[in-house]
Amino acid sequence: MPSRNQDGAMSSSERAVDRNREPVAGYVLTLNCPDRIGIVHAVSTWLMGHGCNILDSAQFSDPRTGRFAMRVHFCPTKAPITETALTRSFAGVAGSFDMVWEIWDCSVRPRVLVLVSRQDHCLHDLLYRCAAGDLAIEIVAVASNHEAAASLPALHGVPFTHLPLRSDNRVEQEDRLMQLIDRERVDLVVLARYMQILSERFCARYPGRIINIHHSFLPGFKGANPYRQAYDRGVKLIGATAHYVTSELDEGPIIEQDVVRVDHAKSPREFTMLGKDLERIVLARALRLHAERRVVLNGQKTVVFN
Amino acid sequence: MPSRNQDGAMSSSERAVDRNREPVAGYVLTLNCPDRIGIVHAVSTWLMGHGCNILDSAQFSDPRTGRFAMRVHFCPTKAPITETALTRSFAGVAGSFDMVWEIWDCSVRPRVLVLVSRQDHCLHDLLYRCAAGDLAIEIVAVASNHEAAASLPALHGVPFTHLPLRSDNRVEQEDRLMQLIDRERVDLVVLARYMQILSERFCARYPGRIINIHHSFLPGFKGANPYRQAYDRGVKLIGATAHYVTSELDEGPIIEQDVVRVDHAKSPREFTMLGKDLERIVLARALRLHAERRVVLNGQKTVVFN
Amino acid sequence: MPSRNQDGAMSSSERAVDRNREPVAGYVLTLNCPDRIGIVHAVSTWLMGHGCNILDSAQFSDPRTGRFAMRVHFCPTKAPITETALTRSFAGVAGSFDMVWEIWDCSVRPRVLVLVSRQDHCLHDLLYRCAAGDLAIEIVAVASNHEAAASLPALHGVPFTHLPLRSDNRVEQEDRLMQLIDRERVDLVVLARYMQILSERFCARYPGRIINIHHSFLPGFKGANPYRQAYDRGVKLIGATAHYVTSELDEGPIIEQDVVRVDHAKSPREFTMLGKDLERIVLARALRLHAERRVVLNGQKTVVFN
Amino acid sequence: MPSRNQDGAMSSSERAVDRNREPVAGYVLTLNCPDRIGIVHAVSTWLMGHGCNILDSAQFSDPRTGRFAMRVHFCPTKAPITETALTRSFAGVAGSFDMVWEIWDCSVRPRVLVLVSRQDHCLHDLLYRCAAGDLAIEIVAVASNHEAAASLPALHGVPFTHLPLRSDNRVEQEDRLMQLIDRERVDLVVLARYMQILSERFCARYPGRIINIHHSFLPGFKGANPYRQAYDRGVKLIGATAHYVTSELDEGPIIEQDVVRVDHAKSPREFTMLGKDLERIVLARALRLHAERRVVLNGQKTVVFN
Repeated sequence: MPSRNQDGAMSSSERAVDRNREPVAGYVLTLNCPDRIGIVHAVSTWLMGHGCNILDSAQFSDPRTGRFAMRVHFCPTKAPITETALTRSFAGVAGSFDMVWEIWDCSVRPRVLVLVSRQDHCLHDLLYRCAAGDLAIEIVAVASNHEAAASLPALHGVPFTHLPLRSDNRVEQEDRLMQLIDRERVDLVVLARYMQILSERFCARYPGRIINIHHSFLPGFKGANPYRQAYDRGVKLIGATAHYVTSELDEGPIIEQDVVRVDHAKSPREFTMLGKDLERIVLARALRLHAERRVVLNGQKTVVFN
Repeated sequence: MPSRNQDGAMSSSERAVDRNREPVAGYVLTLNCPDRIGIVHAVSTWLMGHGCNILDSAQFSDPRTGRFAMRVHFCPTKAPITETALTRSFAGVAGSFDMVWEIWDCSVRPRVLVLVSRQDHCLHDLLYRCAAGDLAIEIVAVASNHEAAASLPALHGVPFTHLPLRSDNRVEQEDRLMQLIDRERVDLVVLARYMQILSERFCARYPGRIINIHHSFLPGFKGANPYRQAYDRGVKLIGATAHYVTSELDEGPIIEQDVVRVDHAKSPREFTMLGKDLERIVLARALRLHAERRVVLNGQKTVVFN
Repeated sequence: MPSRNQDGAMSSSERAVDRNREPVAGYVLTLNCPDRIGIVHAVSTWLMGHGCNILDSAQFSDPRTGRFAMRVHFCPTKAPITETALTRSFAGVAGSFDMVWEIWDCSVRPRVLVLVSRQDHCLHDLLYRCAAGDLAIEIVAVASNHEAAASLPALHGVPFTHLPLRSDNRVEQEDRLMQLIDRERVDLVVLARYMQILSERFCARYPGRIINIHHSFLPGFKGANPYRQAYDRGVKLIGATAHYVTSELDEGPIIEQDVVRVDHAKSPREFTMLGKDLERIVLARALRLHAERRVVLNGQKTVVFN
Repeated sequence: MPSRNQDGAMSSSERAVDRNREPVAGYVLTLNCPDRIGIVHAVSTWLMGHGCNILDSAQFSDPRTGRFAMRVHFCPTKAPITETALTRSFAGVAGSFDMVWEIWDCSVRPRVLVLVSRQDHCLHDLLYRCAAGDLAIEIVAVASNHEAAASLPALHGVPFTHLPLRSDNRVEQEDRLMQLIDRERVDLVVLARYMQILSERFCARYPGRIINIHHSFLPGFKGANPYRQAYDRGVKLIGATAHYVTSELDEGPIIEQDVVRVDHAKSPREFTMLGKDLERIVLARALRLHAERRVVLNGQKTVVFN
């Protein structure tokens, strides 16, 4: 009941909501290279040469690996310039510093495939955030080993694919997944409580492009039934972890984690319910960070420019 | 990806979910009276006399007010007994200690009316939690001063009432609200980001039966636009507060609060987005506490038997 | 600068501090037994029979083990009664329910031996809290395998024992520890960053009477160098865990845990510094809970009546 | 008990501690100016011209004020260069962008005066952190309106000044404070639970150079007895706020805040004890941020480059 206006018209605080939808302008440059003097200077010289204003910039020198990571959000202020032109132009700078790099158009949202099993709370949350304009991804497909998950995407006009799993069709099912990924030009696969293990072949094909939400504070309680494990161990906090998927189960680079307090009186069922909120929020944060190109892979770890 | 089963059949961890729906058994007794020796003894004698097992019990003696509050969750173990019979039987005990008290059947969910304005994230969250079996309330009606909120309840089969507000129909609009509350036998009114101020007449009619979610850490930032106020003040955490509504704006007894970290780089829009998650969670926690009869009013404060 | 008084005299808010030292009155009864109808009734009947008022009471029925745990803080209101008399009187009630139980005099503080190695931040914190009247334990001795820890206890008038460790004197060193424990009638041994592993013989001798602070969020990062492990894994939160020590390393019943946020830019050294605050607070909370008899052992887990 | 070494020698994890003391190398440049294209380029060109490597860099463009703030931690890699030489050289760059700026030698610790009243937990904490090498400030003096605070600084070899306050000597007392500040070349005044209000004259003389710890989550519960206010309001979290002091009570720019959970059963005394931990930690964090030049004033708010 925060607004004091007494008439039935839309209040200013209600109207303000509609302004929240404006797209983010400009481009993001992410790069990763051996650390040495002159990188920031070279990047800023290049930006100034194209009349670009820096909206945000962050960097990290890893003393352990000798690598340098940077994220620059910039905006052309003179003539409009395409992503292709920027990319072609930056290649020279990048080459002389041996950079792994990319330039992203902020107005283009990553195309996402969501995989689920029976639990649909994360899927539901992601669909709502997208619809509300609070998460800048485009969910282009949902797939599941269970038919039950079909109705929710339908409500949001997102195509659903049922990919049933039996003991004898795992390879074939993943082939169909890959075809789906190719056909829909999927940028990112999200395992939103997908309870099946992906093959090494599949994981290796999409490095840094699969994000899983694991319902524990990794590295504690890897594998199956982490809430039950947590209950049995008698921990006082339970957690959730969003990470990139690699072929090693629950070992990929961590993007985001959080915890919530529990106590002896909470049942495994209550752990699960409390955990759902954590999973939703931790996954959504990780996807926002990924979609805004704030996550740079750094070996088995991540650099997160939050 | 937590489960390791290789077949397409439902894994044990997936199956476990379905067991989460079982209704809570038994009754809850809540009471509040002047503190003196013998209350717990009287209650436990009465329970044993009816063959009831105590599942959970909590109490609080307020040294400041001299009041004693108690919540007992119990279960008849012999012959089944009705709420009415229990209530009639307990009246004698209650009388001799001057108790304000109630006995609740745990299998009966409170009937809830949700009021919203334009922002629907809390409504959306509550409807989902109810559908998922994670929140033991029954949403029997949704009403709004805006027509836009109609589609969401429709999806869940919940009746929607449009109660437009103009400068000249406030009294009449509240009359219609009260009729709706009476007709639907509403136990609890939830202001799920309802941006209008309810009259003193309305608030006084439903003491302890209206819960509001305010998007600040009260008592900081009362009134309109708390996220903007928080941004302008430069706080490092933003909060949300669920409280019972009284006729004093944002001054009612607090049920639950939480906060999330922000920094200088976050815009008011980002405060709003981060705050949405807080509001959803804090409101849902408060409703769970209320629905499970864990909140006892204690003057302008609450006792929460969590 | 919170007080507005303009004179040099002590303000009311400063004076209030001195009232904080009053000892807690009364007794605490803790018990653990097979769950069945009538336990609360029997306890409350016994309390009423001795004219005792219940100040606080909490209980827990573990559905998994069928055990019932209870903590009652009570105060005789008629004639004064000794702990011995209460204990003798309660034995009858306890016997008929097969209780493991104890009655504690709240005015008696547990006698504590603190073991440290080189890091003294937890020791320092505990000594300060005791001196400030904020932690109701009595530190009767400090021992260490390093001489360096001697000066701090000396400042607080606490005797220090140097128990050097070599590869060939482990058994003998623990013998001297046990003699110290016996001689000083130590109730509780606190491993305040004691970097040596105690033998199975030692651990088994003091079940539920040794508390360790481990600098990770267990069960993640057991063993040596948990901050380094956390840094290498790239977690986004680091934790600390206070637990009872059993002969299995870092596997004892957990009393309290907490976490703090870190990011990629934090060095192992910064993890260590952030962790120190966590360790201090988590250990102090666990000791308060233990000292107030709020922790009941429940197999490999704890029931914490907070 | 984390290390597994069985000999009495110092373990590698214990030895690691000693390496934590190395001083931070290099310089920090902080600047604040109207935002326009070319600032980062100009700074990076200047740094490269002096053969300086960027260790860390962060910036912020405030869309609301049109101001740009930046912090660069850099290290000369060729010939050593003095702060004076750097400062003289940068003046030209600074002038052309109308910068408010400073260059700080990281090896020079700010000289701090701590003011206290009766409560000494924050003072105690700061003295310990400095002694342990965990906080890069130099406490050069402690002053108090109470004689009781004298013993603690003496233990650490820090001079103590008793500045008694009466209704008639406020101006004179502050004069003596200012003399102390001048004489000791104090860079920063820390109000570590100093319960007296400083005059407008005093506050105005040291803008951005006085830090207070207030024991509430501002803007809630300004003024006297915030824990009592919090208790009376029935909040579910209590907080602490570290902020720069301005002549408006409890209204200065906030540097850091945090909260801790409380419930109905906690007494005002327990609020106070829980709050002490918060105050210690929040104040220490704010001082670290200030000492590392991570805080840039931005009107009534702060930019914190964490």
